[in-house]
Amino acid sequence: MPYVIGADFGTLSARFLLVNPKNGDEINTVVMTYPNGVMEETLHGKPLPEDYALEDASDYLLVLRQGIQTLVRDAKIDPSEVIAIGVDFTASTILPVDQKLMPLSQQKKYMDNPHAYVKLWKHHAAQAHATRAASIAKDRHEAFIKRYGDQITSEWMIPKIMEILTEDPDLYNDAYRFIEGGDFIVSHLIGEESRSACQAGYKALWHQKEGYPSKAYFKALDPRLEHVIEEKMGSMVKPVGTMAGRLTDQMAKALHLVPGIPVSTAYIDAHSAVPALGITTPGNLVMILGTSTCHMVLDHEEHLVKGISGVVKDGIIPGLYGYEAGQACVGNALEWFVETMLSKTDHDEALSLGITPYELLERKAIIKAPGASGLVALDWLNGNRSILSDSDLSGMILGLSLRTNPEDIYRALIESTAYGARVIIEEFESQGLKIDRLYATGGISKKSPMFMQIYADVTGRPIHIGQSEQAVALGSAIAAAAIAGSKNGGYDTISDASIAMGKLEDKVYVPVPSHIKTYDKLYRIYRNLHDHFGVSHPEWMHTLKNIKTNDMKGQSDE
Amino acid sequence: MPYVIGADFGTLSARFLLVNPKNGDEINTVVMTYPNGVMEETLHGKPLPEDYALEDASDYLLVLRQGIQTLVRDAKIDPSEVIAIGVDFTASTILPVDQKLMPLSQQKKYMDNPHAYVKLWKHHAAQAHATRAASIAKDRHEAFIKRYGDQITSEWMIPKIMEILTEDPDLYNDAYRFIEGGDFIVSHLIGEESRSACQAGYKALWHQKEGYPSKAYFKALDPRLEHVIEEKMGSMVKPVGTMAGRLTDQMAKALHLVPGIPVSTAYIDAHSAVPALGITTPGNLVMILGTSTCHMVLDHEEHLVKGISGVVKDGIIPGLYGYEAGQACVGNALEWFVETMLSKTDHDEALSLGITPYELLERKAIIKAPGASGLVALDWLNGNRSILSDSDLSGMILGLSLRTNPEDIYRALIESTAYGARVIIEEFESQGLKIDRLYATGGISKKSPMFMQIYADVTGRPIHIGQSEQAVALGSAIAAAAIAGSKNGGYDTISDASIAMGKLEDKVYVPVPSHIKTYDKLYRIYRNLHDHFGVSHPEWMHTLKNIKTNDMKGQSDE
Repeated sequence: MPYVIGADFGTLSARFLLVNPKNGDEINTVVMTYPNGVMEETLHGKPLPEDYALEDASDYLLVLRQGIQTLVRDAKIDPSEVIAIGVDFTASTILPVDQKLMPLSQQKKYMDNPHAYVKLWKHHAAQAHATRAASIAKDRHEAFIKRYGDQITSEWMIPKIMEILTEDPDLYNDAYRFIEGGDFIVSHLIGEESRSACQAGYKALWHQKEGYPSKAYFKALDPRLEHVIEEKMGSMVKPVGTMAGRLTDQMAKALHLVPGIPVSTAYIDAHSAVPALGITTPGNLVMILGTSTCHMVLDHEEHLVKGISGVVKDGIIPGLYGYEAGQACVGNALEWFVETMLSKTDHDEALSLGITPYELLERKAIIKAPGASGLVALDWLNGNRSILSDSDLSGMILGLSLRTNPEDIYRALIESTAYGARVIIEEFESQGLKIDRLYATGGISKKSPMFMQIYADVTGRPIHIGQSEQAVALGSAIAAAAIAGSKNGGYDTISDASIAMGKLEDKVYVPVPSHIKTYDKLYRIYRNLHDHFGVSHPEWMHTLKNIKTNDMKGQSDE
Repeated sequence: MPYVIGADFGTLSARFLLVNPKNGDEINTVVMTYPNGVMEETLHGKPLPEDYALEDASDYLLVLRQGIQTLVRDAKIDPSEVIAIGVDFTASTILPVDQKLMPLSQQKKYMDNPHAYVKLWKHHAAQAHATRAASIAKDRHEAFIKRYGDQITSEWMIPKIMEILTEDPDLYNDAYRFIEGGDFIVSHLIGEESRSACQAGYKALWHQKEGYPSKAYFKALDPRLEHVIEEKMGSMVKPVGTMAGRLTDQMAKALHLVPGIPVSTAYIDAHSAVPALGITTPGNLVMILGTSTCHMVLDHEEHLVKGISGVVKDGIIPGLYGYEAGQACVGNALEWFVETMLSKTDHDEALSLGITPYELLERKAIIKAPGASGLVALDWLNGNRSILSDSDLSGMILGLSLRTNPEDIYRALIESTAYGARVIIEEFESQGLKIDRLYATGGISKKSPMFMQIYADVTGRPIHIGQSEQAVALGSAIAAAAIAGSKNGGYDTISDASIAMGKLEDKVYVPVPSHIKTYDKLYRIYRNLHDHFGVSHPEWMHTLKNIKTNDMKGQSDE
């Protein structure tokens, strides 16, 4: 009986999933924590600057080996039954490697050098470089920047390379390549450098036809960067979910698998959720609901959508344009409310009922009709990513009265994120992308029926929920099955694999007509507020943030 | 040694204050609770309609007798040393009386009739009549309505009379007079009907030159009301703080005082605070800070100020125009936050420190610089009284982030009320009223130094605090001293009495220049929001309230 493996490298640990390609059944799961974890304060006892977040790539290789060994052994299957491997990884999580693709951090001379280590996606120390890279792109009217909603974030690859070049030019010169964590793993599995369109497209400004930005652009960033692509990255990029190569003898031995099985190009650890929900065609929006929300949709054409995080051909499903948009504040708004604002009354009540405060607030809020709170909020407590691309915007709540309750505010926060999602949907539609159905995955989609019903009512669309608790790892396993070939027990296309292996819950959230009507009215107010504070008068919120920042700096003068 | 008495009739109880007119020293205080309290749910076991708030006028006469007897007896002074009495009362708190000025409720036939009882200021069941009275006034372009910010509230006298006429025309016909509680007490003390310009002006549309509204207006309200003034109220109105008459033999006996001492016309129980703070001249704004705030200022001229609660010649200090403006939500915003939203953390911390949550939130908020919270709020959680006169507006908080703390919101609520006060000040100034200094009294002015400092910083003006805990009762005592005459140990004018007896704390809140600068910037944002949501686009908040009201009605459909 054939099996495929999905290897999902997250922030603190990696998950390895053994899947039956026939039906997507998850046979076994192994979770391995990175021994060195995330290094944010110190590296080997030496303090790190602010906004640092490093990892040790040796950890990845270690958990890869131990994880897959354990996965197969504990499942008591014959290692020869594993027919393919797929990989996903956080991104942009990059590291400098030598000619053998080994991390520079393993070299004695670089052992204590932070720049030799993995710069995790949430390493934000390259902010100044990101700002500069975006502003130079806009000044030069670079067409590529429109594909990224006019922004380059500090999480991406180029700013992180600029940071290393600026702070340690010797190490920059010594580095044979800078590579994404996902590509690093895949390259090690197949014994040669491999890069995926998913990482390159969404995190390194690569385009399927145009390639990376021009030498002139890189030269404008820094003359030493003019040839950064040939010198440090290579120009070979393969579509996501296609075969990167075959497992080497050496790695097969290390993993206790058989050599020669195909390995898929790497996914980013959100994008692989799309095939895991059975989605490989246009018209469907997949929302990965967590701290923030990642929205993904496919299309046959390239459109320029406002405030998008990226549009990448071959980036989610081979052959299609994959669109990614984001909301910066979803689960974290609710977390903020419960962690910071939870009332004494609700705390005690939840305790006595033996439920979480989230559950209590939902119980109290769910019985109210849409609009009964009289509140409309703007979901910008962490700025606005899509469609405004403005991190200096802030949240607001309108309609407060002396009878407003905590659960009213809690519900208004959820509703505001649903309105935010509707703005994204409307922007997609106004650019010619059809969106008929919504799909959701991530913790919230399982835990909060009220949340999901509100999204259905606000968007006026049915919402399907992914069944797997490990959707991203399942997506990698689907990519593996897609390259294994039907004659080996896999499939010949990712569509076939996704249809067979992707899984949805039976429960569908269907919008309630009377709710749609009320939420249409409320959304019109939200949209007015959105355009007023986000488009016509962003200076109000900007001034507030300015005063806050300046006065916090000068607080000692007061 | 001469003494004066201030009798202050509040909502639940009356306070009697024995004062040394020489220096304002408070010699003795007696507080008497009304035996029947406020009747909101039932009258003699019979349920009352919604929004009712009745009292039994017999209670007033009872506590008047017992209170003054006790006051003088316990102070161990000779009753003949009491040289005058002043009275203040909640308003508009009205009752129907017979020809002997006795409450109709004392007649057997009316014992169980709610309309025969006192309709307390917070009896709001006449709302439909109030709305109609205002709308007819506006349709008829009645000049008087401009003196009341274009509104007539359900708390006032005329709507309450309309309510009685509509619901019980027989009782209306039987009533010899409708009279304010304050005038009722004064009339009983002096043995003849007396009406004060304070009550008549602020609560019954009376004007010093023009008198009450025209017969034509009253006829438009209801043909039976055409002659309501002559028939039910009389046209005689005396300036506040002047002599109404002298204590009758009968009442002197009942109170254990000597007959013939002068009795002052009645104050409303906020307006008497003005002389109690030593204020009898223009240029000074007195704020009575409580659940809501009452702003009072004097001037030599009549100006039409937007959203004002009233402008009345002789209404606060004889000879001057007294202006009253109001904020509907001040202390109650903080109370809402602490009662409804108080976090578990803050609750526990306050408990362990043995302080109130208010004190804890102030401790945490006071150490932050102005603007450090990044928040600006609109203080409309209970609608906006001045200057917008729009009870369908609602509150909002702008600038929320994932790092916003409860104390940030608490402070932002306080700041928002300070901005609201500044809007009122600016409106007064734009109409030609000078405001140089601010004065405050009421619980908050004593309890919250942060609150007062914020007001000084936001308005850019020094703030003086009234010293007496019983400012309104002291104001009545000052009015008493002012009519006693200097040859009897009192004074010849209210100015002389107020200067000698009014009392301020030594502590003055002086604005800090750097704070003024920051708050000027924040106030500009507040003012933009104020004008945007209150003037240009009130329909946004109105729609929210509409949806809320309708959907709450139709909740069972959901």
